[in-house]
Amino acid sequence: MANIPKEEYFERIAKFQARIKAAGLDACLVHGTECDFANIRYLTEYWPTFEQAGVFVPATGKPVLLIGPESEKYARGRNVLPDVMMMLNYRESAEPDYPGIPLATYGDVVKVSMGKRKLKKLGLVGTAVMTKPTLDAVAAQLPDVEVVVADDVLRPLRWIKSENELACHRAAFKVCEKAVQAILNEMKPGMTELQVLGIAQREIYANGGDYEGHSLYCFGGDRTSNGISRPTYAKLKKNEIIQLNIGARVHGYSSSIGLPVWFGNIPKEQLALVEFGLEAHKYTIKLIKAGADAASIAKDYTQWGIDQGWGDYMLYGPVHGLGIMETESPWIETTSNYKLQPNMTYQIDTFFTGDGYGLRWERGCIVKEGGCELMSKKFMSMDCCKLD
Amino acid sequence: MANIPKEEYFERIAKFQARIKAAGLDACLVHGTECDFANIRYLTEYWPTFEQAGVFVPATGKPVLLIGPESEKYARGRNVLPDVMMMLNYRESAEPDYPGIPLATYGDVVKVSMGKRKLKKLGLVGTAVMTKPTLDAVAAQLPDVEVVVADDVLRPLRWIKSENELACHRAAFKVCEKAVQAILNEMKPGMTELQVLGIAQREIYANGGDYEGHSLYCFGGDRTSNGISRPTYAKLKKNEIIQLNIGARVHGYSSSIGLPVWFGNIPKEQLALVEFGLEAHKYTIKLIKAGADAASIAKDYTQWGIDQGWGDYMLYGPVHGLGIMETESPWIETTSNYKLQPNMTYQIDTFFTGDGYGLRWERGCIVKEGGCELMSKKFMSMDCCKLD
Repeated sequence: MANIPKEEYFERIAKFQARIKAAGLDACLVHGTECDFANIRYLTEYWPTFEQAGVFVPATGKPVLLIGPESEKYARGRNVLPDVMMMLNYRESAEPDYPGIPLATYGDVVKVSMGKRKLKKLGLVGTAVMTKPTLDAVAAQLPDVEVVVADDVLRPLRWIKSENELACHRAAFKVCEKAVQAILNEMKPGMTELQVLGIAQREIYANGGDYEGHSLYCFGGDRTSNGISRPTYAKLKKNEIIQLNIGARVHGYSSSIGLPVWFGNIPKEQLALVEFGLEAHKYTIKLIKAGADAASIAKDYTQWGIDQGWGDYMLYGPVHGLGIMETESPWIETTSNYKLQPNMTYQIDTFFTGDGYGLRWERGCIVKEGGCELMSKKFMSMDCCKLD
Repeated sequence: MANIPKEEYFERIAKFQARIKAAGLDACLVHGTECDFANIRYLTEYWPTFEQAGVFVPATGKPVLLIGPESEKYARGRNVLPDVMMMLNYRESAEPDYPGIPLATYGDVVKVSMGKRKLKKLGLVGTAVMTKPTLDAVAAQLPDVEVVVADDVLRPLRWIKSENELACHRAAFKVCEKAVQAILNEMKPGMTELQVLGIAQREIYANGGDYEGHSLYCFGGDRTSNGISRPTYAKLKKNEIIQLNIGARVHGYSSSIGLPVWFGNIPKEQLALVEFGLEAHKYTIKLIKAGADAASIAKDYTQWGIDQGWGDYMLYGPVHGLGIMETESPWIETTSNYKLQPNMTYQIDTFFTGDGYGLRWERGCIVKEGGCELMSKKFMSMDCCKLD
């Protein structure tokens, strides 16, 4: 079964430590939360629940997993690092006091991690999700340390996937395909959008997923025009677009397959946008290859869409990074400034929004020389859309 | 069906505004994330996905929902507030640039919210989950404003539930009961822990849940000794404790039912701890009533457990707040400093941990005069534990 062997975590940490040194930092403090746990899981396999978590990684010395006061046995049983310390700032948001549980400070962490080495300059990683209690604790407990944002010291390591990571992603897409197929077999007008998710969730766990890949999408009518949304208690209706985006995780690695479906018939202009969307989706797939310039892909896609006469229906896109998070760095945008490399993974996220309707065709791919490997080739045809 | 009517959100905001004024603040900035969204949903019904969110609430003026660059249609369609503004600091953690999407600053927000009124003193709410991009944006965009932590200005409003909130909680426990019953009917040795969750997820959505109440628990053997944990790909075995904690949300309001189960037989000392756990659970239920002192409940429970000879098996507890989050403020701890009031909601969370095994009996209750209303009376007997 696809998995990340323990050694691979230590290889990641070694590479990260080399980059910390190269960046002129003495250490990095990495942050993760229950829903945005990617950096923590990438380095340690740990995935907090209820609480937050950190990893303190010195340029030279021992990495330490930092957890809240309730997770010691869980963290020691799950994570790959021998050193685990409990700190108040990672506690759950209910902010209990935990009388009697001994807790560490960042000063204690530095001693365990770095011994007699001096911490002068600390990089913060995962700053988009790093919370006030941790920022305050760093300032109070490490008063003489220079603190800088250092997301880019870790981020590029997560861009290019190992064979084990790719195997997890591919497995996740297989789980996805089963979940989508079950939905297409079972969904009926009159079911609530939320009830459709229950079908997907059942299949995700039955087939080897370890969580949903993202908050799952099933929504109909006007809500299909939303770039982001959540399902509701509304009942599925005939003759309108229903957007599905179903993702599974395998050993943490995410996936998502998106397609528009409907019962009965949809108006001609909506059908035309769905068909154009599929064409745009296939057009984008052809742009993905090693060496391609990210901004050029986004500009090509945008100009092509405008030239085809659908510029007003484009909101953003056309491609975003895929990894432990279903949407992660790097995006492919007109402002991007990098070239695609082999074994980067992306979601081809082809979204168009009209007046009261919209649709998304979405699937994952692996960048290869001369092209890309699609992690799912199913549900990429107009034949999938019309349901009985 | 249980629900929170739109007016109730505005009543909450009016009460919050009165408290903001009473605290000597000109406004509060409230924060929420995808997984810790309670404050945002409490005030607006909005629940971010992928992105984070805020609510700016002035002592006098208009509250404004603050969202990331991708959620405008979703937020306008879902939340109750007419004023919605998009800001870069609430974007997803992949940190896209979003070229071409116009974004606001906190200076713009203050103008829309407060008109010509001056913002001199701002309270931050939801600081346990407030992230660096938002803290930095406040500092940079509101340089002359005094900023203070103000969690306690909102928190007590969430403690005492309205009849509509109680109806949502009660409905969530009914969904829970169905999910637990389905698990007890269907789980078998040889299934993975994760596969058991698929049964629960199927039932949650089929029966009117709008999400899991928390990351669901099914884990066996040594992992039952964990206060917090997550299920794995490990297969269920005979003759060891398997801990279940299954929670559903209805209109955002959470629930959880926890019990230990096993196939075959467990060792005598484990059976004794399970039995004592159930006794402790029932003992705790009798302590919950309006007017009771929270710290006294925790001390009574702890001393009673020690007197019964099980002190070494107690880690924390015995009760925590329940609301939109399955674990929220206030806890009942020996350091607590308040009295229980009618219509506060709690989880009676009876956890004992031994050497290589443990168990939790858990259910929700509503504080009443003279006692408490249990939101589920099922699965509270040793007869539920032994499975075929």
